[in-house]
Amino acid sequence: MQRLRNLEAWLEYKSSLLKGIYEDRVIGYLDPGVEKYLEVFNKPTLLATTSSCTGRITIVEGLWHWEREEARILYKTHDPVNVDVVFKHLSRKFLKNVWLKVTGPILHFRTPSLRCASKLLQYARTSGFKHSGLISLNPTGGHTVEVMSGVQLMIPLMREGVVVVSEKSLESIVVMANEALEEGRRRLEKLRSKISSGLDACEP
Amino acid sequence: MQRLRNLEAWLEYKSSLLKGIYEDRVIGYLDPGVEKYLEVFNKPTLLATTSSCTGRITIVEGLWHWEREEARILYKTHDPVNVDVVFKHLSRKFLKNVWLKVTGPILHFRTPSLRCASKLLQYARTSGFKHSGLISLNPTGGHTVEVMSGVQLMIPLMREGVVVVSEKSLESIVVMANEALEEGRRRLEKLRSKISSGLDACEP
Repeated sequence: MQRLRNLEAWLEYKSSLLKGIYEDRVIGYLDPGVEKYLEVFNKPTLLATTSSCTGRITIVEGLWHWEREEARILYKTHDPVNVDVVFKHLSRKFLKNVWLKVTGPILHFRTPSLRCASKLLQYARTSGFKHSGLISLNPTGGHTVEVMSGVQLMIPLMREGVVVVSEKSLESIVVMANEALEEGRRRLEKLRSKISSGLDACEP
Repeated sequence: MQRLRNLEAWLEYKSSLLKGIYEDRVIGYLDPGVEKYLEVFNKPTLLATTSSCTGRITIVEGLWHWEREEARILYKTHDPVNVDVVFKHLSRKFLKNVWLKVTGPILHFRTPSLRCASKLLQYARTSGFKHSGLISLNPTGGHTVEVMSGVQLMIPLMREGVVVVSEKSLESIVVMANEALEEGRRRLEKLRSKISSGLDACEP
């Protein structure tokens, strides 16, 4: 009886999460290309996504790439970049510290079941998301699983107003960034494929 | 009764882990400077460290920094580096892809208690270790908590045999690396201080 009530509460909560995703899609806030993943990731009854990024490339101004609050995004895309774009942003006036960042896919899942969370972590790890973990425990609102890989690049392009990367190497840096973005997507595809063929641990 | 037996099993397991750490110290395998942390981190009854690094700087050869198996470590230190060392390694013959890596502190904890794990995660997060999480669940051998921050640098120094970073910027790259190492240590110190003033959730 208690279990049934918990399940009902979860389903209600999950449906409110899915409604949020639907609204994000309507207002165009959703990361393009993410929908095919969301459908599969939200199919298991005890699993729901609360945030999801398929990976992106940004050009960011800030002293350190890990200080997100202090950083200013100069450019952002979910597609490959070309060298002209990077060069253009690097040539803007009054810049001091500039990074080229590639952030691989990052997903947040909720689940009320530790068994489900544990299986998801296993799938994530074997799909190449080695930095995945349960980041908070909360049996009522759902435990949160963060799925993340080491596929990331944070390349300092400019430091204290001086361009760090030699001009002739900018092209190869851009190639790296695009390859990293692609590698992240390959891993995401692996995870999608694993979850789509069933996740028994995430059924009530 | 069951609980007591579990606690006994855990204490036995923990004591074998601590013995391993002691042996690592005797053979000089232990990361220098880590001992003052290990003492504090292993004090709560339901907590034990299984691996711990206070942060390090490496020069690594390999196509991608995240492919650890394929990478060759050319140089490794737990102390600040100077530009001559980096320059010397970058001048070695037959190199293709070289990275300067700063890895912030990474710690693995075991605990049989989810309540303890949850509190540890909270302490880790508020100390600046934003990428911390429970990476595996196992009530018998202990759940594993990974404590990790975003304080990391992976700077490509050479790509396909061509030096990427302009020679005059090598100095400022080295300064960055040393500052990042220091920032990691500051966060580790915060975590140490929090845990040393008590972790009730990790007492039986």
